Amino acid sequence: MKIAKRMDLLGSETAFAVSAEAANLAATGKRIFPFHLGDINLSTPNSVIKAANAAIEGGKTGYCPAPGIPELRQALAKDVGNARGIEYDIDNVSVQPGGKPNIGKYIAAMMEKGDSVLYPNPGYPIYESQIEFYKGVAVPYGYINTPEGLELDFDAIEKGIKSGAKHIFYNNYNNPTGASSSDSEIERLAELVIKNNMFLISDDAYFDTLYDGEPKSIASYPGMYERTLNMYTFSKKFAMTGWRLGAAIGPKKVIDQINRLNVNMESCTTHFVQYAGLAGLNAPKKETQDILDTLKRRRDALVEILNGIDGIETHVPEAGFYVFPKITKLLNTTGFDNVEKFRKVVLKDTGVSFCGRHHFGRPLENEKDFYIRLAFSGIHVSDLKEGMELFKDWIASNIK
Amino acid sequence: MKIAKRMDLLGSETAFAVSAEAANLAATGKRIFPFHLGDINLSTPNSVIKAANAAIEGGKTGYCPAPGIPELRQALAKDVGNARGIEYDIDNVSVQPGGKPNIGKYIAAMMEKGDSVLYPNPGYPIYESQIEFYKGVAVPYGYINTPEGLELDFDAIEKGIKSGAKHIFYNNYNNPTGASSSDSEIERLAELVIKNNMFLISDDAYFDTLYDGEPKSIASYPGMYERTLNMYTFSKKFAMTGWRLGAAIGPKKVIDQINRLNVNMESCTTHFVQYAGLAGLNAPKKETQDILDTLKRRRDALVEILNGIDGIETHVPEAGFYVFPKITKLLNTTGFDNVEKFRKVVLKDTGVSFCGRHHFGRPLENEKDFYIRLAFSGIHVSDLKEGMELFKDWIASNIK
Repeated sequence: MKIAKRMDLLGSETAFAVSAEAANLAATGKRIFPFHLGDINLSTPNSVIKAANAAIEGGKTGYCPAPGIPELRQALAKDVGNARGIEYDIDNVSVQPGGKPNIGKYIAAMMEKGDSVLYPNPGYPIYESQIEFYKGVAVPYGYINTPEGLELDFDAIEKGIKSGAKHIFYNNYNNPTGASSSDSEIERLAELVIKNNMFLISDDAYFDTLYDGEPKSIASYPGMYERTLNMYTFSKKFAMTGWRLGAAIGPKKVIDQINRLNVNMESCTTHFVQYAGLAGLNAPKKETQDILDTLKRRRDALVEILNGIDGIETHVPEAGFYVFPKITKLLNTTGFDNVEKFRKVVLKDTGVSFCGRHHFGRPLENEKDFYIRLAFSGIHVSDLKEGMELFKDWIASNIK
Repeated sequence: MKIAKRMDLLGSETAFAVSAEAANLAATGKRIFPFHLGDINLSTPNSVIKAANAAIEGGKTGYCPAPGIPELRQALAKDVGNARGIEYDIDNVSVQPGGKPNIGKYIAAMMEKGDSVLYPNPGYPIYESQIEFYKGVAVPYGYINTPEGLELDFDAIEKGIKSGAKHIFYNNYNNPTGASSSDSEIERLAELVIKNNMFLISDDAYFDTLYDGEPKSIASYPGMYERTLNMYTFSKKFAMTGWRLGAAIGPKKVIDQINRLNVNMESCTTHFVQYAGLAGLNAPKKETQDILDTLKRRRDALVEILNGIDGIETHVPEAGFYVFPKITKLLNTTGFDNVEKFRKVVLKDTGVSFCGRHHFGRPLENEKDFYIRLAFSGIHVSDLKEGMELFKDWIASNIK
């Protein structure tokens, strides 16, 4: 019995391996400070939980339509449309068991074998994995580190377009870098997509986690409505990572194909969980604002500490759960030439667990700096501070 | 924006279209007797529901490992192993969002492009769809109608093996036919698989719904342990269709690959639903026995009525939710040459809704008889009887 050759093309989310490593260390009695995974250690809002219980009691435990229950599709069409200033209808929404299934399903449905697909790198590693699994050509684009923050590398994007890229994954706000695009970046990207007759997959995992102001979507730009698939998830905004609820929202032509894949892959998303999500969309804003406020306090604490450490520089992320400090100088002063070695030693010595840039796509040719990613979604401020104290002590003892 | 060519290869579960047709008719005020879909109109056992609520309250709402929570994997290894007289360990189990994902994931992981794959036809239509989506050659085998029941068509199976088939989907007890293999059929199939160095995917969706006696698994036969992947689902036994919980159970080599696909496709199965399933496995047998007893009463009522109708012949299914009557004579006496036309007219005239053989795979060349499938999982005995009375009246009025 041989494994199919296509499995050689499949990547992974190597951050899970860091979780396993940390869990193994925890099992030996070591205290772990979990900065490695974008999970949320906060409760799902009460109205969501109550709705789940009521739906189970009410017998919403049988199959439901493969595209999702009509009530949730309608509510998502309205909510996601309103937040972006555009109009969607029920036929524009396909409910999914999480945000992640959108990636592979879009690619399976719309990417021809051999198509070039631009994707952010550093970025969520499943883009690269699924593009290559379905025999596309994964064309990375990175970010330029400027004093104002990380900006889209338009040279790389334009080069990819010249080489024939037909699709582009766009993750604003970005995991792992925390980068957020300015209005002019979004506009420039939209113009490129339209001019070159491309299609854009907007991974909106962190769209609803902007700490100040109103988020902007590229789908709102004139001409982009028909060229954008929004990848929606309940995971972050509603602290529902383990509930597995998301949706693909975009042109009916794409949604119809994704619905066909739903029938083949999972029949439907857990029935009563869809009622829970519906309750979340209708819940008082305070419930989700509390989650955001808590995350913001963690962000501010973490950024302040990190920028106080010699050899570390980090931007303040406007959204999401991640800081992405440049540690090039720190590696040099502590005698490391490799983030993975550094990460493992810090984990073993201090219990402080984080990911490296290499967990988010294959490093690009021209990279000279070193970065790590710290998630602050799974650690309370007091633990966060305690972990950072240990990290600082470790640095002090290891400066060469 | 073009749809990818591979989508031309994707099939569907056309029984869902019958559901939609019935739902549309119901919306006009017509009373529907739902014999079309294998959903269950019975409550999920109370211990399962309580465990789900407790898990949500207990914060099992974040991510969990992609292969499933260790407690459920361990419990499934033990439960599924014990029921089959073989030993599985945690590494032999990959938790899934339902039984269906197993089909595509096995094929993606283990079927090389161009491989021939035997599959039952009539059978669950997703086998055919996924084999062809991943560019395998779908080789059907049917059932022979004998006075003792439907038997595996070994001529077709042996012909498929001679043509080079490397994998075989086996669904005992079968949907839609209700066929159950005798010991000698299972033994003969096992010998063929071993002798020809094949791998077998045992779709055990109805394994735990045998009404009398103990179910037998082909995985128990000497030499089959390493050649069998068991497709397990909580849907039927625990009336959990809409919860979406299942598992792939088999050789570690296969499970490891399926776990890689889990990471890419959905991160994990809904976290607290896994604790609910665990509670089901540990629940008093009475809770699931009640479900089976109810289904058995429906089966007996339905078979008795059907076999009392002139022109209809049906076997008594030993397991599962389906009867698969031969209606060749009835079609003739009522003047139909086509099951789909017959089905639509009966639905419109009486509200009695069922599927035809054509909803379960492309009809084979040598088929001369006509069959329909009636599911009795979603209809109470009183409604079942009422629907059948209308059906009988309709027949009486339409005999030519």
